[in-house]
Amino acid sequence: MIPFNKPFLTGKEAHYMYDAVHTGKLSGNGKYTQKCQKWFEETYGFGKCLLTTSCTDALEMAAILIDIQPGDEVILPSYTFVSTANAFVLRGAKLVFADSRKDHPGIDESSIEALITPKTKAIVPVHYAGVACDMDIIMDIAQKYGLFVVEDAAQAIDSYYIGRDGVKRALGSIGHLAAFSFHETKNIISGEGGMLAINDLQFAKRAEIIWEKGTNRSSFFRGEVDKYGWVDVGSSFLPSEVIAAFLWAQFENIQDIQKRRCTIWNTYYNELTSWAEKHEIRMPFVPDFASNNAHMFYLVCKDVEQRTRLIDRLKSNSILAVFHYISLHKSPFYEGKHDGRNLPESDRYTDCLVRLPMYYDLEQEQQELIIKVLLDEK
Amino acid sequence: MIPFNKPFLTGKEAHYMYDAVHTGKLSGNGKYTQKCQKWFEETYGFGKCLLTTSCTDALEMAAILIDIQPGDEVILPSYTFVSTANAFVLRGAKLVFADSRKDHPGIDESSIEALITPKTKAIVPVHYAGVACDMDIIMDIAQKYGLFVVEDAAQAIDSYYIGRDGVKRALGSIGHLAAFSFHETKNIISGEGGMLAINDLQFAKRAEIIWEKGTNRSSFFRGEVDKYGWVDVGSSFLPSEVIAAFLWAQFENIQDIQKRRCTIWNTYYNELTSWAEKHEIRMPFVPDFASNNAHMFYLVCKDVEQRTRLIDRLKSNSILAVFHYISLHKSPFYEGKHDGRNLPESDRYTDCLVRLPMYYDLEQEQQELIIKVLLDEK
Repeated sequence: MIPFNKPFLTGKEAHYMYDAVHTGKLSGNGKYTQKCQKWFEETYGFGKCLLTTSCTDALEMAAILIDIQPGDEVILPSYTFVSTANAFVLRGAKLVFADSRKDHPGIDESSIEALITPKTKAIVPVHYAGVACDMDIIMDIAQKYGLFVVEDAAQAIDSYYIGRDGVKRALGSIGHLAAFSFHETKNIISGEGGMLAINDLQFAKRAEIIWEKGTNRSSFFRGEVDKYGWVDVGSSFLPSEVIAAFLWAQFENIQDIQKRRCTIWNTYYNELTSWAEKHEIRMPFVPDFASNNAHMFYLVCKDVEQRTRLIDRLKSNSILAVFHYISLHKSPFYEGKHDGRNLPESDRYTDCLVRLPMYYDLEQEQQELIIKVLLDEK
Repeated sequence: MIPFNKPFLTGKEAHYMYDAVHTGKLSGNGKYTQKCQKWFEETYGFGKCLLTTSCTDALEMAAILIDIQPGDEVILPSYTFVSTANAFVLRGAKLVFADSRKDHPGIDESSIEALITPKTKAIVPVHYAGVACDMDIIMDIAQKYGLFVVEDAAQAIDSYYIGRDGVKRALGSIGHLAAFSFHETKNIISGEGGMLAINDLQFAKRAEIIWEKGTNRSSFFRGEVDKYGWVDVGSSFLPSEVIAAFLWAQFENIQDIQKRRCTIWNTYYNELTSWAEKHEIRMPFVPDFASNNAHMFYLVCKDVEQRTRLIDRLKSNSILAVFHYISLHKSPFYEGKHDGRNLPESDRYTDCLVRLPMYYDLEQEQQELIIKVLLDEK
């Protein structure tokens, strides 16, 4: 069986975890946590980074930081993972779902402004497949209406946006806050794991407090206060040092990882373009303003039947291709709370998008087999 | 320097983490997560267990499960870690702080009933130092008023309560829900980590959903539903498999760990009793209905000055003794929201309690030195 995903190990993970274990500091915010945060800040130009137990938790921190109150509205795409939505629902937000672009599963930037009301507090663009949303449009709207932008950059490590000023900026460095994932299905992994990037530094101090269970423990250890106590809401958002140690081995090898993933992605793209056109299947689209971090190789079939046939044929050849997401505005949990607008593009991706196996250790002959099975389609 | 705490390693942690890494399943709910949960359920008689990224997260799951709504009241001791409180504050609860017992830092069970109002939803007893609260009293009150009981068993692994029926029950198996910690300062550790124990099985199905980000993914993998989606609020409460693998090495050695800790605890107790009496210092108290899991060795000084002198003298002999907690009803965050009642016992423990170094690897001669420095008190 060719799996859909296989976590890649650089070979140093166990070594660094062993080192962390033997330093005798195993709870959060130790040596490896600080190394990972510093590397992330310096490599991508984020204001301040805090390692979290998951991208979900980084989004929850963002929702607390922008002070979401019951009834506040948050605009986000319907075609996304549940955590994008849950983080804000947990604070009492009303979700206002936007449709996806026709040419890409990301949020339709042109549809956002019409969704704004006096209760709107934030826009949460999701950089689907690591491909940038048009951040100039989104940041302009946010500025015009005084909204916060939280980038859901779960899939978007090492990917970029080129703004109309011609400057290339890392995804996650543009909004006020951003959340990354290191789940085992991502380019860079720690099993479960995430990172909050804080670009609007008005949030930096409070973020550290919320991260440390609502205490000013970090200030205490820096000698800024003479005792620490409970000063705010918070949670235990920081992961164990062994998670950070594992992640460090991945960060060290990011260039190699990204190069290999790009090779696999480009092979799919080059080999499947003509076939896809013939069968009215759409290839992944990367706008001029976006880079491609080779997180995912997806296809958009012409209808659900075609997708089912494609998945079944791959499966009968021992190849696992999967689909996701189910439009959140049609989910059992939120359908009754949604305002009733149709979001046809979101529904189309729900029915038609399929992801091909995509991981570092995918061997050349395995990829050739996958491509051959697809090309054999009548 | 003799530290206050030193994480103990059984020697198998790195081995199991290595094994987890090489199984290729690194995200949550893999082989080691299931082994840990099953072991915990079977060893202590919990209804169902779910591994979490922290005890804080287990408490947050409990708050969601009992459906805390803004304005609901939760009764808890003021003398506790902030997470006991934060988990409920995050759901909008009003905290109603109870005082501690005169003979023990745990909640004064006799004070609870007077704090109940029509808005009370839950009682959260904390088994301080792993020593049981009088659960018969608490469960009777809960039943009388239709309240939920969430045991904060952060420190209470492998500790027991003997009820008036003479039956010995594991702490965490008595309330509707319970939360355990595997933070590096606990008897059994995974750096950061926790476990939710579910005894009232009406919560079992929903707990699994909330744990899996509000999706019915677990049901899907068991074949109970044909697709999975967003059905409830939730978060990413489940830790990486490497955390579970680490924890497994600890569970395997719990008997050895507990035996060693008890030896250290008993040495302190036997050597310090006469000295403490002479200096009006109170020794740790274990009621007849409770067992002692040797989580912590604490002393209660006669006043804050005596405590400061004691900590300073230990420090000048390179021994680190620490105090905690600061009464939550007097914290910067909650003081203005507290109803103004004095909680003198809580304040007394805040001022007078001190914890001595207590960990598996504390050597005999180190402990002798600590005791000697204390006994030298004029």
